[in-house]
Amino acid sequence: MFNAIVSADTLQDTLDSVSVLVEECKIHLEADGLEIRAVDPANVGMVDLSLSAAAFESYETDGGLIGVNLSRLEDIAGMADSDQLIHLELDEETRKLHIAIDGLEYTLALINPDSIRQEPDLPDLDLPAEIVLEGRDIDRAVTASDMVSDHIELGVDDTDELFYVDAEGDTDDVHLELTAEDLIDLTAGPASSLFSLDYLKDMNKAIPKDAEVTVELGEEFPVKLHFEIAEGQGNVTYMLAPRVQSD
Amino acid sequence: MFNAIVSADTLQDTLDSVSVLVEECKIHLEADGLEIRAVDPANVGMVDLSLSAAAFESYETDGGLIGVNLSRLEDIAGMADSDQLIHLELDEETRKLHIAIDGLEYTLALINPDSIRQEPDLPDLDLPAEIVLEGRDIDRAVTASDMVSDHIELGVDDTDELFYVDAEGDTDDVHLELTAEDLIDLTAGPASSLFSLDYLKDMNKAIPKDAEVTVELGEEFPVKLHFEIAEGQGNVTYMLAPRVQSD
Amino acid sequence: MFNAIVSADTLQDTLDSVSVLVEECKIHLEADGLEIRAVDPANVGMVDLSLSAAAFESYETDGGLIGVNLSRLEDIAGMADSDQLIHLELDEETRKLHIAIDGLEYTLALINPDSIRQEPDLPDLDLPAEIVLEGRDIDRAVTASDMVSDHIELGVDDTDELFYVDAEGDTDDVHLELTAEDLIDLTAGPASSLFSLDYLKDMNKAIPKDAEVTVELGEEFPVKLHFEIAEGQGNVTYMLAPRVQSD
Repeated sequence: MFNAIVSADTLQDTLDSVSVLVEECKIHLEADGLEIRAVDPANVGMVDLSLSAAAFESYETDGGLIGVNLSRLEDIAGMADSDQLIHLELDEETRKLHIAIDGLEYTLALINPDSIRQEPDLPDLDLPAEIVLEGRDIDRAVTASDMVSDHIELGVDDTDELFYVDAEGDTDDVHLELTAEDLIDLTAGPASSLFSLDYLKDMNKAIPKDAEVTVELGEEFPVKLHFEIAEGQGNVTYMLAPRVQSD
Repeated sequence: MFNAIVSADTLQDTLDSVSVLVEECKIHLEADGLEIRAVDPANVGMVDLSLSAAAFESYETDGGLIGVNLSRLEDIAGMADSDQLIHLELDEETRKLHIAIDGLEYTLALINPDSIRQEPDLPDLDLPAEIVLEGRDIDRAVTASDMVSDHIELGVDDTDELFYVDAEGDTDDVHLELTAEDLIDLTAGPASSLFSLDYLKDMNKAIPKDAEVTVELGEEFPVKLHFEIAEGQGNVTYMLAPRVQSD
Repeated sequence: MFNAIVSADTLQDTLDSVSVLVEECKIHLEADGLEIRAVDPANVGMVDLSLSAAAFESYETDGGLIGVNLSRLEDIAGMADSDQLIHLELDEETRKLHIAIDGLEYTLALINPDSIRQEPDLPDLDLPAEIVLEGRDIDRAVTASDMVSDHIELGVDDTDELFYVDAEGDTDDVHLELTAEDLIDLTAGPASSLFSLDYLKDMNKAIPKDAEVTVELGEEFPVKLHFEIAEGQGNVTYMLAPRVQSD
């Protein structure tokens, strides 16, 4: 049994956070909220999302697992104005999700969860550096780097206590340095890794410009990006595997 | 002789209402206003439009019939700001229409009316159900239905006194029910017909979201959609032939 | 040595004025500001631009000549908000331009000026007619003419003291007349020349709608278009060669 009411913008933000990596996903219906974990086909980018029951206007379930086509569900949610409520109700018998928006009822066929790529185990990494910054600074770094290269180095200068971004192209380079003053918080430590811009660009799309983003970094280790959605009632963590240093 | 001045938005709304169905049309220049009737090449959708002389700032004619290329005329009207005036004057000798917008003069070659598809006779149907609703509700129904199917059923539930929309796709369905409370007015009667979404989508584009639209329906009969333009000085009626029920 | 700080919108307007004609250009770094002169590959359209040192927040140079890829530089400038400052600094040794926007540093490889098309000599013409009008009137004339033709006649009616624009298509025509009343200023004189719309459309893109544009015209002579950018601290002159009259 699953019967919930949620605001359109909360549902949209939730779906957008996952759909930048995968087209289909499993949604765990837990007593205290929704849980989604997914990894892209190349096994390079992962997302771990939880949306608390408190993020909903009403939320009832006795547990379960459903598989959904994200773009289809995004299209439906997109029909609502951001402040409209969306009613979700699972029909256990037909395995369809009834989605109602102000009198309009959409019946969505679900996907057999067994046919969806297996959920990843997110490695429990203890990364030495942690940077907290605004989403808009990630956007600036990613957008500029994309003008010159297809990969990006993220690092921390342990001595000067600053976070840096480096992108080296064939002719042009981009460099961004943010000191403790420019950042919300910085725990310096030895950190420097190279990442694919394709993935960071997709993740960047889902990160609100005004979000407080926590970045965890190491030496040639995956990067973790955490931020909140749904006014703090939802948590998103992206993990991105490093590229082998090209030089 | 034809010499008239009209606001750009009135002319734009008039042209848009017709151009969703046809590329060229005949315009009857009558003493009391303009009249346009047209049918699409497949003979499925028709439009009947009248724009009263009162919709114009000034309007003079001794009658006549002209043929126009609608997209060309829409481009010209689109050059004006919505509150600018457009001066239209027919040159009988050259069969060209002089269109002046604040000093800019455009000379449009007219089309021989005999070369344009014949105007349809709009059948005088006495349909048992009549629904009056806002343009935005038609837009919601059409947009959602388009996500799952290429046809749409419109009907009235005579017993429960409600208007419904049904679209059944291969996997997903859309259903909308509007009771007398949700509608501006409802005259219930036995009514249920299937229509092509392609046509309804085009007609929907020309229906203002805040227009009061009167829908006349029957059992496997054409649907009629009426609404006003030009602050009540213009009337548009669309008629759409039903599809044979697929099930 | 070149070290300057300029607002993003001033730099963007400067680059846009030149990039409508050429992809690469030479920039002369003079004591009193920047100078750019360029001609398109077909030798039909030219631009002569100067941006005074007073247009900059700070400006220091001991002279020099650099070659730049305009679209690359436009992309970088486009990353800044219009009221942000952009810091430009030439690295003489590497021949790279360091561009800093609020902590973000972009290193742009310059182009060898010798590899860029030679700068044109702008002929010193004494044209008999001069029209001063708003950029938005040029936009209207060019947009409407483009609907019917690929060339446009600009002229002055010496007797009636008016500026006219004529575009003749295969079936439709566009005509615009602006009298001294509609214009900011008019010095009448014998003038009538035919121009390619392709070039005028490009130049029109770079002319602000609210700019005061001075147009100098003659009988089958090039047209000159002057306007200011950077709140009067920059000057742009376009010159466009006439087409041979087609009739």
